[in-house]
Amino acid sequence: MIKRIAPEAEVIDITHGIAPQHVLQGALVLANTLPYMPEGIHVAVVDPGVGGGRKPLALKGADGRFYVGPDNGLLLVAADRLGTVEEAVEIAEKRFMLTPVSKTFHGRDIFSPAAAHLAAGVALGDLGPKLDPDRLTRLEVPAAQIGSARIRATALYVDRYGNIQLNLTSDQLEQVGIVPGSKVEIEVRFERYFAVAARTFAEVKPGDIVLYEDSYRNIALAINQGDAARMFSASVGQEVKLSPAG
Amino acid sequence: MIKRIAPEAEVIDITHGIAPQHVLQGALVLANTLPYMPEGIHVAVVDPGVGGGRKPLALKGADGRFYVGPDNGLLLVAADRLGTVEEAVEIAEKRFMLTPVSKTFHGRDIFSPAAAHLAAGVALGDLGPKLDPDRLTRLEVPAAQIGSARIRATALYVDRYGNIQLNLTSDQLEQVGIVPGSKVEIEVRFERYFAVAARTFAEVKPGDIVLYEDSYRNIALAINQGDAARMFSASVGQEVKLSPAG
Amino acid sequence: MIKRIAPEAEVIDITHGIAPQHVLQGALVLANTLPYMPEGIHVAVVDPGVGGGRKPLALKGADGRFYVGPDNGLLLVAADRLGTVEEAVEIAEKRFMLTPVSKTFHGRDIFSPAAAHLAAGVALGDLGPKLDPDRLTRLEVPAAQIGSARIRATALYVDRYGNIQLNLTSDQLEQVGIVPGSKVEIEVRFERYFAVAARTFAEVKPGDIVLYEDSYRNIALAINQGDAARMFSASVGQEVKLSPAG
Repeated sequence: MIKRIAPEAEVIDITHGIAPQHVLQGALVLANTLPYMPEGIHVAVVDPGVGGGRKPLALKGADGRFYVGPDNGLLLVAADRLGTVEEAVEIAEKRFMLTPVSKTFHGRDIFSPAAAHLAAGVALGDLGPKLDPDRLTRLEVPAAQIGSARIRATALYVDRYGNIQLNLTSDQLEQVGIVPGSKVEIEVRFERYFAVAARTFAEVKPGDIVLYEDSYRNIALAINQGDAARMFSASVGQEVKLSPAG
Repeated sequence: MIKRIAPEAEVIDITHGIAPQHVLQGALVLANTLPYMPEGIHVAVVDPGVGGGRKPLALKGADGRFYVGPDNGLLLVAADRLGTVEEAVEIAEKRFMLTPVSKTFHGRDIFSPAAAHLAAGVALGDLGPKLDPDRLTRLEVPAAQIGSARIRATALYVDRYGNIQLNLTSDQLEQVGIVPGSKVEIEVRFERYFAVAARTFAEVKPGDIVLYEDSYRNIALAINQGDAARMFSASVGQEVKLSPAG
Repeated sequence: MIKRIAPEAEVIDITHGIAPQHVLQGALVLANTLPYMPEGIHVAVVDPGVGGGRKPLALKGADGRFYVGPDNGLLLVAADRLGTVEEAVEIAEKRFMLTPVSKTFHGRDIFSPAAAHLAAGVALGDLGPKLDPDRLTRLEVPAAQIGSARIRATALYVDRYGNIQLNLTSDQLEQVGIVPGSKVEIEVRFERYFAVAARTFAEVKPGDIVLYEDSYRNIALAINQGDAARMFSASVGQEVKLSPAG
């Protein structure tokens, strides 16, 4: 659809691998990825409310990026982290849609056409009426609970290696005394394991359970040369408790 | 291969996700997708008969689209729906192939090179001898059986959400009295379930079994926020019976 | 990252489907694929040693291709097959990296930027100090053992159809008397099966176990219209014994 409307536009796929309906996962992947992508018109669609009341959005960020997708929070984690939302509109103008608009595939019928029209030079304000950026739907990204010697964290994302990204930073780990080289007791689903905090996989043995700072500056839980998500039967939302060991 | 022969050609992937050997599934995805794609040279390869007697085809449609692939019916559902096949040839000229041609990978050795040569300006008739468009292999797309108060339908396609596309339209549902809002009894593998006919997922509760018109105007069977194909252990070809309930 | 540094570069994905940590599998796919790809700057990353001592490499081949990736053998099967390595450097210049360099994602922070800078015209020698091409890490590709009437082969790769590529050529099969049309006894995991050597799948019946020369000129083991890897529970590294039958 994009190429039909804007043949000169260059389309770069970030991923088609977000788990169905996982808006938060999509929002976090978008926020993690965009800083490394060229500025552009970023379309994202994870849209369990398609056909219901949620509005189709197009946004302009302070950094010149555009965002197109449903008003369910998907776009805002990235847009808020990368700057201020300068302008927001509801995509409402039928002439910028593929009509008749289907009830279940707005990625094809509304979002991609809107993005293509923006790429072809249509002004954001022409797509539909203005919205107040402060009143857009925003997701609550769960925060880790940091105790005196114990952390309760949540899995935000599982990558294709089975590494489990937690809502945790190395600063937070340090608050309970966990630094690279530390032994760590972790608890997942009432089972306890020993892990080691490391800078890289090269520092530990195959099969070791590792806590490391991943390339997006989150702490992740992994098994060196193994699949942590499978071993712990863990997916997004899984609670993980951590405390210094010995 | 395309880029080696036609460096200026722009290559757009539709999917690499067709189940191995499923020619009908490939044919239906192609027919559903092409109306939304820019006109171009469309290459499709699902080719269980590779190396056997089936001919390599290149076609020109009335709408200016070209089609390249095996003569096993894969191209014709799309080509017939989008217009008339104006010209058909067997790809036979060795100079437009990657030689020596392997016995098992004609996508690389015959179809992609032929498409690239068409993109680079070679005339269709130069690829090989003409074929009679009426004598090309065509697939039988199974038709739903519509009774007085009962429909026997077949699963044509299962998407990545587990939604099951049936060979059924909303007009056919209406013939047995099923309209949006109706309760529907469905039977899959001798088990009965209650579903609801709906316009969108937003109209029903999580976990509800839903019949809806999908974005290709086929009726599909889904579970709101669930995976219908997994729940019903259903894949392409599965028979589904439907009747109005209560 | 590539598009940020070299917006004019054309990026072609070969695959994102190499099994995690399988350096040999990645090396063989690269070597099999590159002869059919346009000459370019080829980036490959399968990198279990990321963050450890292995060096980041950039190479220039005699044929004008460039290779970028970790010094763990991944690049050398392809580079050695396609010509001589003319020049090798360690990527060491920080100005050609995304800094700060993460400890676990050198694909993003070192390899893609280096490739993009090469595409944008940076000279190979500017990326870092020269290395001796003869002292780069090279993988040992396992060789088949050919007896008088028996072959011991190893699975090199399993494709998406479940076909098992062996480290075996048709010449080697012929040495023990197996030619197209021959019956073959195969042994996998102490179980024996009868297979048939064939030129194409079209020559055999559905369900038949087939040995055929695949499109990369390796002998592969398959089940016609089935999934051999699943049936034999075989993955990369699986030993397969073959002998002529009856």
